[in-house]
Amino acid sequence: MSTRWIHRYAQRTQRMTSSAIRELLKLTEKPDIISFAGGLPGPELFPVEELREAAETVLEQKGRKALQYSTTEGYPPLREMIVRHMARYGIVVDIDNVLITSGSQQALDLIGKVLINPGDKVLTENPTYLGALQAFTMYSADYVTVPLDDDGLVVEKLEDGLRSGPKFMYLLPNFQNPSGVTLSLERRHEIIKLSDHYGIPIIEDDPYGQLRYEGEHIKSLVVLDAECVQCQHEGKYTGNVIYLSTFSKTLAPGLRLGWIVAPKEVINRLVQAKQGTDLHSSTFDQMLAYEVGRGGFLDRHVHRIREVYGQRRTIMIKALEQAFPDPSTGVRWTRPQGGLFLWLTLPEHMNAADVLMEAIREKVAFVPGAPFFPGGGGHNTIRLNFSNANEQQIVEGIARLGRVVTRALAAQPVSA
Amino acid sequence: MSTRWIHRYAQRTQRMTSSAIRELLKLTEKPDIISFAGGLPGPELFPVEELREAAETVLEQKGRKALQYSTTEGYPPLREMIVRHMARYGIVVDIDNVLITSGSQQALDLIGKVLINPGDKVLTENPTYLGALQAFTMYSADYVTVPLDDDGLVVEKLEDGLRSGPKFMYLLPNFQNPSGVTLSLERRHEIIKLSDHYGIPIIEDDPYGQLRYEGEHIKSLVVLDAECVQCQHEGKYTGNVIYLSTFSKTLAPGLRLGWIVAPKEVINRLVQAKQGTDLHSSTFDQMLAYEVGRGGFLDRHVHRIREVYGQRRTIMIKALEQAFPDPSTGVRWTRPQGGLFLWLTLPEHMNAADVLMEAIREKVAFVPGAPFFPGGGGHNTIRLNFSNANEQQIVEGIARLGRVVTRALAAQPVSA
Repeated sequence: MSTRWIHRYAQRTQRMTSSAIRELLKLTEKPDIISFAGGLPGPELFPVEELREAAETVLEQKGRKALQYSTTEGYPPLREMIVRHMARYGIVVDIDNVLITSGSQQALDLIGKVLINPGDKVLTENPTYLGALQAFTMYSADYVTVPLDDDGLVVEKLEDGLRSGPKFMYLLPNFQNPSGVTLSLERRHEIIKLSDHYGIPIIEDDPYGQLRYEGEHIKSLVVLDAECVQCQHEGKYTGNVIYLSTFSKTLAPGLRLGWIVAPKEVINRLVQAKQGTDLHSSTFDQMLAYEVGRGGFLDRHVHRIREVYGQRRTIMIKALEQAFPDPSTGVRWTRPQGGLFLWLTLPEHMNAADVLMEAIREKVAFVPGAPFFPGGGGHNTIRLNFSNANEQQIVEGIARLGRVVTRALAAQPVSA
Repeated sequence: MSTRWIHRYAQRTQRMTSSAIRELLKLTEKPDIISFAGGLPGPELFPVEELREAAETVLEQKGRKALQYSTTEGYPPLREMIVRHMARYGIVVDIDNVLITSGSQQALDLIGKVLINPGDKVLTENPTYLGALQAFTMYSADYVTVPLDDDGLVVEKLEDGLRSGPKFMYLLPNFQNPSGVTLSLERRHEIIKLSDHYGIPIIEDDPYGQLRYEGEHIKSLVVLDAECVQCQHEGKYTGNVIYLSTFSKTLAPGLRLGWIVAPKEVINRLVQAKQGTDLHSSTFDQMLAYEVGRGGFLDRHVHRIREVYGQRRTIMIKALEQAFPDPSTGVRWTRPQGGLFLWLTLPEHMNAADVLMEAIREKVAFVPGAPFFPGGGGHNTIRLNFSNANEQQIVEGIARLGRVVTRALAAQPVSA
């Protein structure tokens, strides 16, 4: 016997496609490549000094507590801080509605663990966040998909999907990953009504909600659900929406801290699942996040992040306009109002994977869009991240990519 | 519609028994209770000052790296440190055989995720670690159990279990949780041969291996497997054993850091599973553990932990001898050579849950043994932790518990 046994096992991992993002992140580590791949925050914005002071304070004042086992639900002062933060976005909950997770990715895993049985359907946007597909596929989910346009999920096509009986809808309403588009308020209202009508809950994934660079904040699905008169059967906050967010984009992803907001009875199930998964998230990191955030620093810090990322987005759009082929060639891109990503569509006859091979030779990287489409398609799409590279790199990287795309466009006949 | 939907879902969490340990940990938070419940390290032994210095160094020298996303496999210098550490116990592997996990609990979850399909059998000791049952049950495992005696798993009864076709064996050879017993070398050899013969891999969970207070270290199953000539089909380290350990007992559990050692192709599957689970463990905490450990501090520190816990164990045994009823009454306890737990058996007609109710009135707590028995039984058993309470508390707590047990023994007729 040898480890050949592993090939008889592990059906779940066999079912998964290898992660394009993961393989590509390896490329981005080469220092001479300008990468628009990953979804990494700009590290020069990490509040290193504030966290150094917070670490000092936490270990000096509460060292033993910070290093000991703690409760699965999470550090209570951090959960209270999240309650106060949520309230400013109209999400009125109390501490029992909040579970701290090891990054938003763990929230997706716990939801898969609690809600998905093998063969269950999950309704997603097409394209959608690859990490969610990785989490749900481990629980043998199948997918029903609904396309996106510039106003987010195409609601007219949602009902067909709901009739097929998915376990839940997984939606990213704000500055969607990968497409960058934002779901309109009208459509949000529609979705809440349909969710209630069909009795199908919603996972609202909102990692970027605070990172809006223009326009007005649009109410979250969780808020609209709480406001929905027709949906009120049991009083306050007994809703259909499980809301997810994270400290990864506004503080630091290396700490692996996210949270789930949900009705208490849902939280109870998720806590039970988390207990068997990792007992609890790092006590020390939770206390750090609380210590650095409690005086209001995070609000000021998010303001600064918005400024820098907003500028980078603007520069990327401008660089695309300068370096890229004329829109009449069929090359198009989104103009996201927030978040980290911009979405580029090439003409149908082009293949983003081929373009990537050429791009890497020119020392610029991105993520081809196809893996984000659980329903298939997207061979001619590209996700570009604008938060990690600085302004000079963005201009230079887009110039390189523009040359690659222009060449590829010229090399291939528009029609066969 | 309301959150009544959750009751239609969540079959997995419905299947789970509520956690006795979890509920009891809540009691131990009351300051006037002497708790032998949990498995908590003594917080006065946490190297708070060393970690404070390490945090300072990491954030000053590598702050941006420490706060950024990192690879799923874990921080390479930490994995190399683990490789060197393992080598001193005869476990010869390289960095590709090591995966950092968010505590050992996550290792159990990932193993469940990769190896268990609904209805698969898992072979465990009876009793076994409750957290493993929680992890595996989430993947709808069934259990085949083998009893323990003072030399660990009763090997003569193993073959019956293996013939029923379990997916793997889950074993805790050193200072088993909850029983405190250690698997003898002879039995370890037998188990390796049977594992090879039946083609059934072993999960060797070794959180306490370094915490030996008397006697000689016994070779790990992973070492015996690598040495097993009859098992060698593909050369070096292609074995049947997945080995787990943790920093929770030797550094600090609050950082949630453990590791898996396994053949590379097994690690690859586990990495894929971990990627969908939480992307990676806290970059900062991993760098902290490396920084504090790289100069050899952890070896000196473990030496000190061994001294303190060894002393506490001795004091608890002595206190039991003084405060507890005569062995002729049928009250017995193990004398563990290491680890954190001592195991107490009451006469058959007594019920540990009833004793606990009385004990809590006397302000002393423990964990009743029954939940640790996936195969049933153990109503008259008790797990006592000796690492968390100090020496005075141990003497006083055992005196209180002795009074409770003596009273209960007197109140109940020996035969009906």
